Order: sequence, then structure tokens, then C-alpha cells
Amino acid sequence: MTWINGQFQASLPVSDRGLAYGDGIFETIACINQTLHLWSRHWQRLQQGTKQLSLALPEQQTLLNWIEQALAEKNNPPLAVVKIIITRGSGGRGYRSPDQPQPRTIITVHPWPEHNADDYQQGISVMVCQTCQAPQPALAGIKHLNRLEQVLAAQELSANNCREGLMLECLPVDNNKSAKKTVIEGISSNLFFVTRGRLLTPKITYSGVNGTIRSELLEQAQALDIPLATGRYELQDVLNADEVFFTNSIFGILPVSKIIYQYGQKSRHYQQRDVSMRLAKRLNPELQRPCQFNSL
Amino acid sequence: MTWINGQFQASLPVSDRGLAYGDGIFETIACINQTLHLWSRHWQRLQQGTKQLSLALPEQQTLLNWIEQALAEKNNPPLAVVKIIITRGSGGRGYRSPDQPQPRTIITVHPWPEHNADDYQQGISVMVCQTCQAPQPALAGIKHLNRLEQVLAAQELSANNCREGLMLECLPVDNNKSAKKTVIEGISSNLFFVTRGRLLTPKITYSGVNGTIRSELLEQAQALDIPLATGRYELQDVLNADEVFFTNSIFGILPVSKIIYQYGQKSRHYQQRDVSMRLAKRLNPELQRPCQFNSL
Repeated sequence: MTWINGQFQASLPVSDRGLAYGDGIFETIACINQTLHLWSRHWQRLQQGTKQLSLALPEQQTLLNWIEQALAEKNNPPLAVVKIIITRGSGGRGYRSPDQPQPRTIITVHPWPEHNADDYQQGISVMVCQTCQAPQPALAGIKHLNRLEQVLAAQELSANNCREGLMLECLPVDNNKSAKKTVIEGISSNLFFVTRGRLLTPKITYSGVNGTIRSELLEQAQALDIPLATGRYELQDVLNADEVFFTNSIFGILPVSKIIYQYGQKSRHYQQRDVSMRLAKRLNPELQRPCQFNSL
Repeated sequence: MTWINGQFQASLPVSDRGLAYGDGIFETIACINQTLHLWSRHWQRLQQGTKQLSLALPEQQTLLNWIEQALAEKNNPPLAVVKIIITRGSGGRGYRSPDQPQPRTIITVHPWPEHNADDYQQGISVMVCQTCQAPQPALAGIKHLNRLEQVLAAQELSANNCREGLMLECLPVDNNKSAKKTVIEGISSNLFFVTRGRLLTPKITYSGVNGTIRSELLEQAQALDIPLATGRYELQDVLNADEVFFTNSIFGILPVSKIIYQYGQKSRHYQQRDVSMRLAKRLNPELQRPCQFNSL
């Protein structure tokens, strides 16, 4: 069952602009022993998302009360995933928003996905997806509901038995053969890699999501004195790296053992885990995820 | 009320992937005296859209029966807008589609928008939007549910008292100052312009929608011996044109009297209507729209 604006409801009106145009945002939050993990970062991103889309955001306390209600109805599971969707509410036909939109906040509680211990100990296999992310600065960073690029990329995964996909930025329209392949993120996670002890992650300027764990790590790395940079990086930089890992709000830090590229024809194996593990030790236990990675 | 897979329903499950990710497509069809205008072109685009997204499409006859039901429930209005949404149906959390998705076809019948005769006789004012369309070849052409770019562009219109907005392609990421502004389409329509008797319209390769009226016009122009080209055009080409008009499945052909550009600081007026009117005479009466345009 579902909570919509604090009311217990099974379904939503077909006139909702979230359905019609993906006119809204969402958050996926780990709830550990009734605590919303990194709530302030999720709240910050909700604020940023509603601002970029000129969407009204409920009061923080109201939202927290609604989440509490939704969790209570599930008997407060010790581990759960809370998903929040905020749409612009109902509208008529046409892209133009109603003059007085009545946003809808939809809260659902999902089972906690158990992890595969091998994924953490050995690292996961990742493929470079052909589906690219189109650079759209007006939507970069926020977790909006226009996710067909991710849906198409996820379709590629199924065929290749990979746990995650690495997404590149779409090549420029007037592409000459020398155009560089810029990396952005995973399908549902952020990308980090380590080169000569330096932690690197793509800047989220033209596409990609400002992940909550990503933001947290950028801070943790400073606290651990791990040298850090964000920028525009090429696929080749990642292939040349010593360590690679992905992050998201549910699985934490997940090391990569292999990247498959060039349409499945080539692969690169990663054996080091030193920096990844130092960071994972800070963060993964909070999400009840392993932080002992095997260096191969 | 709404028809979902041929059943009369008021609402849809919150688990629908159309809401979660915009995972689906739609069509907006003029229904004139119980006839779906240019149905075969809409059907063709539904086929293309479901193919690009690997989405199942109902049988044509099933879909037509569902539309007939939905119209009958509204007492078969002489003029109406039929909207079809096809989503991948319900799914769990995560971008990956269920193994056996059960698509949902949602049919709604909307009032026919009356036209303003002045819009046709005098032409409309159009502004160049700052919200751009990001080039994404995997989604170009089809009428998918990821429409935040159009939603943001439509927000710009409200402030400027314009009937339609002209959307450009996003500039390349590594933009040097000399990058050209490429035109794509209107917010909810396709763009045509006429230069020295030649009819021109942007190619729909990296972004934009393959409009049904657009396809129809490309054929009609040949039949009328109007020289025709599609390509990548710059804003300056449109500003230099003799005539400009927009097309969509509901308003038909709508001439442009003025384009406002450079953040509202400049404008260009268009006085000729010769080619626009020849085409409108073929097409607008079918949609019960005026085809007599004033040349100024």
C-alpha cells in the first residue's frame, strides 16, 4: 500500500503529471532501525530538485511524519527502503503546469535488498553501456522522474550478466572520430576510481545524479586525507585506474573486479582495493554491508 | 474517467513504471466525427516507440476497440482529443524491467480545444526558449513520457505571453563561443519555415518528435510540387526565413507572426504566408481549423 499526501491509498489519478511527463522527482532512502540514513543529504537533494523544477516541497516535518506513518503501517521493519516521489500533481493535457498545482507526495516502503557477500568480497562485473546520457544541464544532479536512459541501459545489463553498467555521456552530434568517451556514472550509482592513490569521480554538471553517498564520500575522503578530485574523465582514465567502485544509498560502496568494454570484446580486471576499503570501513557498516574486500 | 487495458478505472497503481521512470509512450489524436485523424500515422509512431523501448504494443484492433469504448462513454462527441498512454506496467524498485512486464494502455478523452481565429489569421508570437533539448538519438522521434524539457520550456512561456516556444538543441559541452544554435521544434509542435519558396524542417535525428502532421506535410508538399528539404538548421536560418509555421495533431498548421529571441531583447516579424496557406488549405479544414491567413 501507498501513502499519498499522508493518506493511505492504493492508487493515483491518471491525470497526475508524474505519469504524463515524468514531472517530478524521487528519493530512495535506506531506513536502518527506524533511522533514515543520511536524511539531511536526501532532504538537500529534494530541495535542489524542487527548486530546479519550480515544484513545491512539503515542510520537512510533514514529510517525516508521512514517512513515519508509512513505516508504522509496515510494523517498522528494522531494515527497509523508503521511496519518496513528489509530482506536480494533476493537470490537464499540455505541458504547461496548472496555475495552482497541487503536488503529490507518494511514499512507499520496500523490502531491504539482501546483499550477495561475494559482490563485496570479490567485486562486481560491470559493462560499458551503449545507451549514453545526453548532456542536459537543466536536469543534471537531481533525481527527476525522466529515467528512460537508465531503463534502456538496464535492458543491456540483462543480456550480459553484469551487476551494474557504466554510462558514458552521449558523443557530440557533429562527432568526428576523435571524440573522447566521457564517463558519467553507473546506471543506478555513482562512479569512483583511484589512480596512484588519488580518488576521482566525474563532475555532475551536464548529466548524472548528485548521489548522497557520493557527497558523503567527498567529505569522508578529506577527513581521511585521501587526495581527491572531480572532473571530466574519459573511459580510458577508468580503464587505467588502480581501483574502481560504485556507490549508492542502498548498497553503499561496491568494488569493481572487471569492466567489460568495446561491445563485450575486451575487459579489464582490477585487483587493488586499498582506498575503496578504507572508505567502505567508514560507510558500509552503517548500511549493514560488508567492508572487507579481497585484494586479488 | 479513464480506460486502462479496456477496463473502466479511475486511477492507476503507484507501482506503474510510467510514473516511476516515464517508462512509456503516448499519442494525442484529433477525433473528428468519430474518426481518428491520421490514425495510420499515429499507429506507425506507436509501433516505432514501442520498438525503440522494447515495449509490447496491443493489437491494433484491440486498441481501436478500447478507444471506441472510451469515446462511447463520453457519448461520442463530434470533436474530441483522444490520448493514449502505453506504459511498461507495474514493476518493483529499480530500473530493470520485470521479466514479464504487463503493459498498461491508458485511454482518456479530452475536450476539443477551441481555436482563437486571430492566431490563424494574424499568426502567433513565439519565443526562443532557454531550455534546450539534449541530443539523445535513442529517444529521438518517438513520443515517450520523459518530457521535463518541454515542461521547463513551457514554464518560460507563461512569463512571456507567447503561444508557443521554439526549442534549440543544447550546445555542446565543450562549447566554444562560436557554437551554432541548432533549431529542433516547438514545445508541443514541429517547426517549418520557408526560404525563397523552399519548405524546410529540422531533421529528427538527435532530438524532437516525428510529428504526424509533419510526416503528412512532407508528403503533401511533394504532391503540391513545393521544393522541400530536411536538415540541421540554425536559429539564424529561421530568422532569415520568409515564412515560419508550427504544426501539431490538434491545431494543424499555425502561422508565426513574430519570433522573440535573445532573451526577449530582439524580435523578427514575418509577413508572408503564401506557402503556409497552400499547405493549410489541404490540411486545416480536416481539423476544422481556419486556412485563410492574412499576409501583412
